[in-house]
Amino acid sequence: MKLIPLERQTKDVSGLFQEIEKRVKVVQDYVMQPEYVSRFEPEDMREAVTCYFASGGKRLRPAVMLFCVGAVGGDESKAISAAAAVEIFHTWTLVHDDIIDRDTTRRNGPTVHERFYRKPSTQQLYRGNDAEARHYGVSVAVLAGDVQHGWGISLMTELTTKYGLDAAVTLKLIDTLDTRVLCTLVEGEMLDVQYSQVPIESLTSEQILTMLWKKTGALFEFCGTTGAAIGLNTPDLEHPFALKLARFCSACGTAFQLQDDILGIVGNQEVLGKPVGSDIREGKRTAIVREAYARADKEQRKFMLGTLGNAHAESVRIEQMIQLVRDLGAIEYTANLARNYINEAVEYLDGLPPTSYRDLLAEWADLMISREF
Amino acid sequence: MKLIPLERQTKDVSGLFQEIEKRVKVVQDYVMQPEYVSRFEPEDMREAVTCYFASGGKRLRPAVMLFCVGAVGGDESKAISAAAAVEIFHTWTLVHDDIIDRDTTRRNGPTVHERFYRKPSTQQLYRGNDAEARHYGVSVAVLAGDVQHGWGISLMTELTTKYGLDAAVTLKLIDTLDTRVLCTLVEGEMLDVQYSQVPIESLTSEQILTMLWKKTGALFEFCGTTGAAIGLNTPDLEHPFALKLARFCSACGTAFQLQDDILGIVGNQEVLGKPVGSDIREGKRTAIVREAYARADKEQRKFMLGTLGNAHAESVRIEQMIQLVRDLGAIEYTANLARNYINEAVEYLDGLPPTSYRDLLAEWADLMISREF
Repeated sequence: MKLIPLERQTKDVSGLFQEIEKRVKVVQDYVMQPEYVSRFEPEDMREAVTCYFASGGKRLRPAVMLFCVGAVGGDESKAISAAAAVEIFHTWTLVHDDIIDRDTTRRNGPTVHERFYRKPSTQQLYRGNDAEARHYGVSVAVLAGDVQHGWGISLMTELTTKYGLDAAVTLKLIDTLDTRVLCTLVEGEMLDVQYSQVPIESLTSEQILTMLWKKTGALFEFCGTTGAAIGLNTPDLEHPFALKLARFCSACGTAFQLQDDILGIVGNQEVLGKPVGSDIREGKRTAIVREAYARADKEQRKFMLGTLGNAHAESVRIEQMIQLVRDLGAIEYTANLARNYINEAVEYLDGLPPTSYRDLLAEWADLMISREF
Repeated sequence: MKLIPLERQTKDVSGLFQEIEKRVKVVQDYVMQPEYVSRFEPEDMREAVTCYFASGGKRLRPAVMLFCVGAVGGDESKAISAAAAVEIFHTWTLVHDDIIDRDTTRRNGPTVHERFYRKPSTQQLYRGNDAEARHYGVSVAVLAGDVQHGWGISLMTELTTKYGLDAAVTLKLIDTLDTRVLCTLVEGEMLDVQYSQVPIESLTSEQILTMLWKKTGALFEFCGTTGAAIGLNTPDLEHPFALKLARFCSACGTAFQLQDDILGIVGNQEVLGKPVGSDIREGKRTAIVREAYARADKEQRKFMLGTLGNAHAESVRIEQMIQLVRDLGAIEYTANLARNYINEAVEYLDGLPPTSYRDLLAEWADLMISREF
């Protein structure tokens, strides 16, 4: 399988990109309002809380939420704070997961804990004591994620206090986000950590897909639910449109994560903003690696087990592993799996009124598996 | 100054204790409902999220919030979920602060990160790799705090969804808790971390008291505000009763923290549930230590600087430091300071209707500085 760079795609996605970009800008401007940013003290905290927003990010979640608002006939401008909230909520989970996964790079820059470990003022504060400076980096990242978590929730309250949404809807959405969605995300991250320590052959494909859905699909699903609930101004999250959009986003979320795993192996480091092969060094139990292992012979398995989770594996070994995964057809297998999720997702759109928003959602779904970023 | 053990206090506080105990039990039963606990998966997460509740704790915050509800003529039974929320909110800040402060003991047991580092199943998972097991402990504690944060917020939504409070009140309280209160708590913790690295003589008494208020007073203040807002069913947090109770709780919170600092030096380890002297080893910039330093001569200062923040200081050195702090009168000074805050606090009660609740609040205020636990 060959991933087609966006500029060489046969389908014209420039319209979709413009629509996404428009919303990314609105959400970005909303988030960076001085009214919010001035809340964060002292200076290191302000920088830690806002640095991921300054450096971009895909912002696929706010865009899809706003498309969902439109798809049920709602007014997008009343949902901006929720779109911002879901992006910020996603961000704090990244900040905390980066601590847990000990990732040092994200979006072509240092992760939060790495940034505040390396920062000259930190080195000065701890007078070159490396372990203490490193611990300070982790402390700042823990607290920054906490502040972002609260910020996201407070933006949800604005749905009613600033934009007049029925308070019952807002309370229902806050409760859902901070219990069901949050518990699912955390469970997914916990399973990811625990799975990395058990033999890859002991995990079923289903276990891995469930873990992956919990880590990613649950928050995407929430974007669909929320977009519909806001657009319809109803606290009934079982409304047929809400269910359809939830399932649509949920399936897209799983496909998104599968594509992430593919890009983590065959992607372009610069476009991705993080090192290719880090999943292998961390020993992540991805669907790709599991499939490759299942297809490998005894010799190949031995090589894989010696590479997977080997933090000090040499680059050449990582490259060999990547070639092996390709040769065994595991990438094609995973791409097909992702494609199936997208096909399933698009079917959920059938029950919605035919609008330009519905078309955008269908295009957006395709982007989940054609993207290289 | 000598602290009078509660059983030897001349004033009869058994009535107050019974009233606190009653509410502690109600809140405890509320928190531990299977409906909540069953949300947390996998097993390690469930244990991590709930273990601090199983092991007790002072629960002074929920008790005072419920007294405040009664003091403005409200129905306490409608505020149970908020009382539970504030205790859980407090708990996640402890879990994350314990990571940051590298504390290993709380409430006579291990802190969350320490517990999951030492747990036999963790040691088994990481096959004795100590650094990995330790990192797993931190990961579990980061995520457990995150889950507790969300749980606290979802309990706040119940004020309306289960107990019929005006939704405008609930949204206002959630927003206040997750922005103003949260940002203040985090700023206090950040300052605490940063101050520990600057020379103690460069900090003013005011800087230390402000930091300490941010770490503790802000959440106490919220208990007063919330109790009044729920009791009055008003989103007007500037209502005269809300302001009075906020100020009352705020001043009590500062006194509470000063007493904590005193107990951290002259308290009983078993009653406290954590080692006496850990503040000194961690180099915490407490009001006591700052005052002692200001009163010390050159020789004594040299000794203090060699002890404060010396993680490996021998017990005998810690004991000498404690004796020095006592001899310099810094404990008596801090106790007087705390007493002044309580005197100020009690004056705020004057503007409230004379009820048994108001009397309880006055007794509760005294407890903040007479307590040995």
